[in-house]
Amino acid sequence: MLQQRPFRLLSSLSRSSTRPIAACLSASLRCRSQRPYSIHADASVGSPIKDIEPSKLSITTTTSPKALLPPEELIFGRNFSDHMLSLEWTASEGWLPARITPYQNLSLDPATCVFHYAFECFEGMKAYKDKNGGIRLFRPERNMARLNKSSARIALPTFDGDAMIELISKFLKVDERFIPDARGYSLYLRPTMIGTQRTLGVGPPASALLYVIASPVGPYYPTGFKAVSLEATDYAVRAWPGGVGDKKLGANYAPCIVPQMQAASRGFHQNLWLFGEEEYVTEVGTMNLFAAIKNKETGQPELLTAPLDGTILEGVTRDSVLGLARERLEPKGWKILERKFTMKELADAADEGRMMEVFGAGTAAIVSPVRRISWKGRLVGCGLAENEECGPITGQIKDWMEAIQYGDEDHPWSYKVPA
Amino acid sequence: MLQQRPFRLLSSLSRSSTRPIAACLSASLRCRSQRPYSIHADASVGSPIKDIEPSKLSITTTTSPKALLPPEELIFGRNFSDHMLSLEWTASEGWLPARITPYQNLSLDPATCVFHYAFECFEGMKAYKDKNGGIRLFRPERNMARLNKSSARIALPTFDGDAMIELISKFLKVDERFIPDARGYSLYLRPTMIGTQRTLGVGPPASALLYVIASPVGPYYPTGFKAVSLEATDYAVRAWPGGVGDKKLGANYAPCIVPQMQAASRGFHQNLWLFGEEEYVTEVGTMNLFAAIKNKETGQPELLTAPLDGTILEGVTRDSVLGLARERLEPKGWKILERKFTMKELADAADEGRMMEVFGAGTAAIVSPVRRISWKGRLVGCGLAENEECGPITGQIKDWMEAIQYGDEDHPWSYKVPA
Repeated sequence: MLQQRPFRLLSSLSRSSTRPIAACLSASLRCRSQRPYSIHADASVGSPIKDIEPSKLSITTTTSPKALLPPEELIFGRNFSDHMLSLEWTASEGWLPARITPYQNLSLDPATCVFHYAFECFEGMKAYKDKNGGIRLFRPERNMARLNKSSARIALPTFDGDAMIELISKFLKVDERFIPDARGYSLYLRPTMIGTQRTLGVGPPASALLYVIASPVGPYYPTGFKAVSLEATDYAVRAWPGGVGDKKLGANYAPCIVPQMQAASRGFHQNLWLFGEEEYVTEVGTMNLFAAIKNKETGQPELLTAPLDGTILEGVTRDSVLGLARERLEPKGWKILERKFTMKELADAADEGRMMEVFGAGTAAIVSPVRRISWKGRLVGCGLAENEECGPITGQIKDWMEAIQYGDEDHPWSYKVPA
Repeated sequence: MLQQRPFRLLSSLSRSSTRPIAACLSASLRCRSQRPYSIHADASVGSPIKDIEPSKLSITTTTSPKALLPPEELIFGRNFSDHMLSLEWTASEGWLPARITPYQNLSLDPATCVFHYAFECFEGMKAYKDKNGGIRLFRPERNMARLNKSSARIALPTFDGDAMIELISKFLKVDERFIPDARGYSLYLRPTMIGTQRTLGVGPPASALLYVIASPVGPYYPTGFKAVSLEATDYAVRAWPGGVGDKKLGANYAPCIVPQMQAASRGFHQNLWLFGEEEYVTEVGTMNLFAAIKNKETGQPELLTAPLDGTILEGVTRDSVLGLARERLEPKGWKILERKFTMKELADAADEGRMMEVFGAGTAAIVSPVRRISWKGRLVGCGLAENEECGPITGQIKDWMEAIQYGDEDHPWSYKVPA
């Protein structure tokens, strides 16, 4: 079986007691001096010594291809395609040649820094089949830019995003049969970067592994929208100014599970993260949040979402919703606003009949309509009638997004994987 | 070679495409309903279905024992003993029998949740050789209690701390030859718990692995104390109210590396984490911080450290320093205070000749004397003369601690491993 063959690291990371300590130390020191990471990290800092070279890709295909699951059995992130794409990085050599191999376990020393200090970051993106049988990605350059920002923030290496998109495209051609050919279906891609240094000292990793696995997924709402109920969380805080809440780090996820479980134990689908004494509305579970309300003074419809102040994940879906809304809703009289807003503003809008719609936005669901929010012992209605599962703007945005993602509409956001 | 044999999980976690999806789902749901984790988690919540049973331990010893390194070549967390202790947990079965095996790689599916969502927490503790050749641990029940609090906070399982100490004791007997027999030397133990669920959905892991690896270490300051210089960090925060800064989670470490690198790039050994507009002094790098200053009004010497308000790691060394100081310094006229204090208070004390000593406290160094702190463009002196590397209280506390840790002094904090 594939998974029993240990994943051998090219850079001979497998532990050898005869590896000279001096060499390890100097690699670590080189790493420090050559990679001037900034806290305001962007993809231009932390240049690796040797960047990704797609031409050096090697491909080893599986000898035991998996059977495809029936569409109705697809569950998010549970089953994976035949192969994986991986690249190793070392502080001294930069990015080593990329490999496409059979999907297989990683074999890592128990002292590896990813297990101890959360040197890990990831992306979520999808590949779609268009009506001509072509493969499409949605704004992949955004995911690559964000992964670079995430990795730089935790002293992991950065890379050339365009080169990585080229590699992902080749990976998609190899596992093309796992991209379901139906509206609402896609191949979920999970680019992941982990620190692989095998020492317990707390410092910047001198080696890393970037890999991409792929999981075929069905529609988030297979039988149509189901509006969710949220519980506003005021006793735990997801992110903080000067923290890392705007980066897609593993570190942002495990600490958020217990509040989600507590919301679930009281019958709510997700928790809504508030911030500060003002109870600013920030994010819902693992999605950005949008609220459509009528302005108290003017009655003008407004679409609100929290601004990118460092505590909000810079969602690709969030940015796309904002872009489409500015282009297509503003001409119809809407105001599109990135600004701080409080839970009390939402409750007031509900009380005063000004609440229109609320929805989460993320790669998994695109949009996720919200029925009500539990807050301070009351339930704040979010504009849906009892027999409604989705408001008109929420549904409209989903349709706009899907038309671009599946290539029905020609749009610069849709990236065609070369045939 | 040992490291090339993949670590096989007892619970047959190795991926099988024929594993029924329904079984996975129900395990996950059981997990949710049976483990009522609280955000104010303590070791009494999240009871596993079947707790650790030390009598079921199996031991497989290595056939290729490692050569011991000369003491002067020991570097923290770089070389490990012959064996490792490991226990698997599943939501449906609880803790499976513990195993001592040769030190070896972990073989994990690339979708395993530890790589994506930082389901990981750990402890740091040491085993010492006493003057009679016995093995000693220092307050191990504290490490077990903290590991339980850490794991419960991220929806990982809890366990019976006494049973785990019994297993660690047996592990130490197997690898006893790796405990260096000299003052200042010890065998560093790294209990680690990781989530091992192999799906990308964000939720409580239905399986986990608890393992302990051991690294022989020398004195933190092999040639005597070297006082360190700190840079106060005001542009990034380590922890915040409602967050997880008081737990020993991987998530607290990776985000702190870049600020440490930035401090290092300006010539400082560590960074000092300030919090809030008040610039409260919280922690130094990965240690708790203590300051000894004379009271402005009374001139009475005071030993200050930040209170356990949820943002401060509950250090075992911190607690021990406080305990010893209350017992042995208060009778000599000292006041021992756990209270918030600001960077300005330290600067004022320095300016007014009231600064006595500042030191970090943690398992690795016990105490780490501080020479100066860079803050707002100035250097705040911490009471040491140019030719001094350590203040008298700092040195006294280290001696007290070591006397207990190495068993020179009979003390309830020293745990004797059964012969």
